[in-house]
Amino acid sequence: MLHRKMLQEIAWADFQKLSLAEKAPYFVQSSGRPYHCVMAQQFDREMLDHLCDLATRIRRIGKSKQGMDYLSTLLKNKRAMLYFTQPSTRTFLSFYSACQILGIRPAEVRDPDISSEAKGETKEDTIRTFSSFFDLIIMRTPMQGFAEEMAWMISNTDRPIPIINAGSGKDQHPTQALLDIYTLARSFEKRGGIDNKTVLFCGDLARGRTVRSLSGLLMNYTNVRQIFAAPECLQIGQDILDRLKAAGIEYEVTTDFKGKIPEADAIYMTRLQDEWGDVSGPPYKPEDYFFTGDDLKVLKREGIIMHPLPRRKEISTECDNDSRAVYWRQVRNGMWIRAALIATTFCRDDEITQYYMLNNR
Amino acid sequence: MLHRKMLQEIAWADFQKLSLAEKAPYFVQSSGRPYHCVMAQQFDREMLDHLCDLATRIRRIGKSKQGMDYLSTLLKNKRAMLYFTQPSTRTFLSFYSACQILGIRPAEVRDPDISSEAKGETKEDTIRTFSSFFDLIIMRTPMQGFAEEMAWMISNTDRPIPIINAGSGKDQHPTQALLDIYTLARSFEKRGGIDNKTVLFCGDLARGRTVRSLSGLLMNYTNVRQIFAAPECLQIGQDILDRLKAAGIEYEVTTDFKGKIPEADAIYMTRLQDEWGDVSGPPYKPEDYFFTGDDLKVLKREGIIMHPLPRRKEISTECDNDSRAVYWRQVRNGMWIRAALIATTFCRDDEITQYYMLNNR
Amino acid sequence: MLHRKMLQEIAWADFQKLSLAEKAPYFVQSSGRPYHCVMAQQFDREMLDHLCDLATRIRRIGKSKQGMDYLSTLLKNKRAMLYFTQPSTRTFLSFYSACQILGIRPAEVRDPDISSEAKGETKEDTIRTFSSFFDLIIMRTPMQGFAEEMAWMISNTDRPIPIINAGSGKDQHPTQALLDIYTLARSFEKRGGIDNKTVLFCGDLARGRTVRSLSGLLMNYTNVRQIFAAPECLQIGQDILDRLKAAGIEYEVTTDFKGKIPEADAIYMTRLQDEWGDVSGPPYKPEDYFFTGDDLKVLKREGIIMHPLPRRKEISTECDNDSRAVYWRQVRNGMWIRAALIATTFCRDDEITQYYMLNNR
Repeated sequence: MLHRKMLQEIAWADFQKLSLAEKAPYFVQSSGRPYHCVMAQQFDREMLDHLCDLATRIRRIGKSKQGMDYLSTLLKNKRAMLYFTQPSTRTFLSFYSACQILGIRPAEVRDPDISSEAKGETKEDTIRTFSSFFDLIIMRTPMQGFAEEMAWMISNTDRPIPIINAGSGKDQHPTQALLDIYTLARSFEKRGGIDNKTVLFCGDLARGRTVRSLSGLLMNYTNVRQIFAAPECLQIGQDILDRLKAAGIEYEVTTDFKGKIPEADAIYMTRLQDEWGDVSGPPYKPEDYFFTGDDLKVLKREGIIMHPLPRRKEISTECDNDSRAVYWRQVRNGMWIRAALIATTFCRDDEITQYYMLNNR
Repeated sequence: MLHRKMLQEIAWADFQKLSLAEKAPYFVQSSGRPYHCVMAQQFDREMLDHLCDLATRIRRIGKSKQGMDYLSTLLKNKRAMLYFTQPSTRTFLSFYSACQILGIRPAEVRDPDISSEAKGETKEDTIRTFSSFFDLIIMRTPMQGFAEEMAWMISNTDRPIPIINAGSGKDQHPTQALLDIYTLARSFEKRGGIDNKTVLFCGDLARGRTVRSLSGLLMNYTNVRQIFAAPECLQIGQDILDRLKAAGIEYEVTTDFKGKIPEADAIYMTRLQDEWGDVSGPPYKPEDYFFTGDDLKVLKREGIIMHPLPRRKEISTECDNDSRAVYWRQVRNGMWIRAALIATTFCRDDEITQYYMLNNR
Repeated sequence: MLHRKMLQEIAWADFQKLSLAEKAPYFVQSSGRPYHCVMAQQFDREMLDHLCDLATRIRRIGKSKQGMDYLSTLLKNKRAMLYFTQPSTRTFLSFYSACQILGIRPAEVRDPDISSEAKGETKEDTIRTFSSFFDLIIMRTPMQGFAEEMAWMISNTDRPIPIINAGSGKDQHPTQALLDIYTLARSFEKRGGIDNKTVLFCGDLARGRTVRSLSGLLMNYTNVRQIFAAPECLQIGQDILDRLKAAGIEYEVTTDFKGKIPEADAIYMTRLQDEWGDVSGPPYKPEDYFFTGDDLKVLKREGIIMHPLPRRKEISTECDNDSRAVYWRQVRNGMWIRAALIATTFCRDDEITQYYMLNNR
């Protein structure tokens, strides 16, 4: 468990200089529960297991009307601001649904043009205004490091509230990494969990923050092998490889996606992130990095295909009804793990577990 | 009662070839209740009567705080996506209100530009994503046949949910037809109902889908005479007339709107649908197809004036406070009949009726 | 207490000619509670005290989950339309939150382009449509006098509902004035309340409707001195000064903001309202009308700094953590006083007071 440090006791200039590992303790509560959720690196194995277990309990409780009605009483005294200045229907709806499930009443600001920023307000003042009305801010912005800075800022006012990073620029999208972990944990539930599995990443590994975050979280598990299959110009960053190497984790870098499919327990497909600009490098055939109906034949019988969505052509629609295609379930998993995260942030996790023990076992 | 057929047992290519009457059984549940609500033609007299009766019960229950509080418990375990990529404040708010009345928590996507479609996602994937989060999709799009195709698609996944068509291009807007029927039924409640009445349609009959749908639903009633008054270039389509003729229903086509007012029990005014493009034909005087204060004098004492709204100049505002002008009540009726439809879709209709019998009679 | 007059008994043409004082009685209920909230002038001292007391009770009840859960049952049978065609995140979220606290389910229309107005509907028809679905309309528009006209119109239909003006053009923004009054009342709670204090207004006094409204409401209190500090081109209107003079209220007009700070109990800063167009007049140094860290030194120990927000550079951020800087608390006060106003409009104020007496004292 992380030993909590106080954001009120460090200046922003000093905080910025810390490494990710050094920053992590500043985002937790004294109980070890997350307060702000800013970066994937703040979650250790213990908390990942806790969130996955809780997500499953919430999911099972939610199968009955009685259970769903119970869940909606838990945080009905809370209201959340979903501040999404970068388009993202999927992440937005996932958080919106998670709030609704727990009874949190959501409000949203999605278009900065109709906001006070048009009147010359700073972003800091905008966030501080939200904190006047709401009990939680869930934010997605194109600005790298913004969620982190706002977490520091809001903790230094007389009305601190939790901030959850729903994607900040190219650097962090921690709840996407959580839902990926939860999907792996669910899929391998009867096969010993995530430990000792091989994950094959494919596609735009250079710019997809989901791959970077997931790769990092997988380091919390035992003996997970990571394979990165991409054309040279889209290959994973050297910083990620250095990190894996330093931790003694087995990995492989290749341009031969198709050849690696038989080895994979999980294949993590991604789309070309062209909203971040062009890449340069030797030409390649995109279809070499597509997963098709033919590839189903060589995939392990218990292997799974994941994708953070939206997809373009990386996965052929003919795979959609194969039981190993879990990307639609992955979407729904995002709703459950986010509900688990929010419930834990507000310390209602133990109560949910008690209800589950009494009613669902 | 329709005998249910399974969408999972027919290929899309084959389904598309069916007639409207042949498609209808695929949208119902085994109990005969609607599952998907795709087209006006899927409602028979029995279901129309059921929905009208239920709408009235919900409306009466909702008159007290206790009743409204009861209604809001019925489906509070459900969440709905309102996917409106075609502008429509009125229909949107009507469905939104209907959801709120039943306790359903709504979410919305109204601007496709801020959605994942901007990242190259297909519309099928977008809908399937919604089905991961929500228990009901209410959709309005400019694309003819889209709701129907999505209903087929979603029924062929492992997480089918009901789809309600809130307007798809020029072809269908079934819940508008339901609210028109409910308005007629309420207005003629003490005069023997809709049977044996004369309905006079006026305005842009060529392109207004509401007229086409309502004309069709009226065929479920006995001896309802239909008069179509419009300039030649805006007159009702021959397909509609052929349908009436084949069913042996009395109808009349005329350019003389004013002369027909005294014969009408209900006058259904419509606006020029110029968002669908220009029409060509002989020139006409628009004011010949307006309803004014003078026309009130020749309208039957118990006749009614309807309009799907928004109006422009088709109905003079001096008519607004006449008791026969029911177009504002018609708006509110839309909310009640949509609540009735949704409650029936989720099989809570019998419970509402029981509550009504115990508390409101 | 105002003696109620009926909007149904006066023609719009006649109503328009009345003075503000003559209009006020038309907006109240027979109990003296507000029905429509259209203009600051409709609130007398008795009602201001009532609303401030109620806001404090709601605020204190809301501190516990049990209390917040109680509040959310009060008006859960009601639904509100927030019709904001003029951008205003802060006011919007404040009302949205106030509704959520009381259990009112909100819906919103913020972009007139996606509404029926695009189909040629008049604004009157749009508002009347809203009244078909909702129990309350909260509206903000750039059109002077619009809320007033719609209040008259809706009271003359067979489905009247309350209208709250959330800002109409340059003329009125009554709930902003209420929140300013509440902030003054809370800040001076232990110093005898608002009576006998000095309020120093600074900045764009020519066009800021908040200053005009607050100046008027302060006339309800005893011996409140008003100082207006602004460059000549932005000075307060002569009509306001005439009104103060006629009422025998002490005031002062100056260009020397800095020199007046030591005399003030409350300093009310405002921003340049340049969205209303340019002003002309002799040049001035903007920074002469900024409040900085240095100015904190000469401000009274119990003085307060207010700002309706958003701010630009009028208040230096180094003041933000001084206990006398109340502008962030002022934001939150807006939520409580609006909840108090809405609860009073729907006559749930007495019940809240009873609950408070039983549970919170």
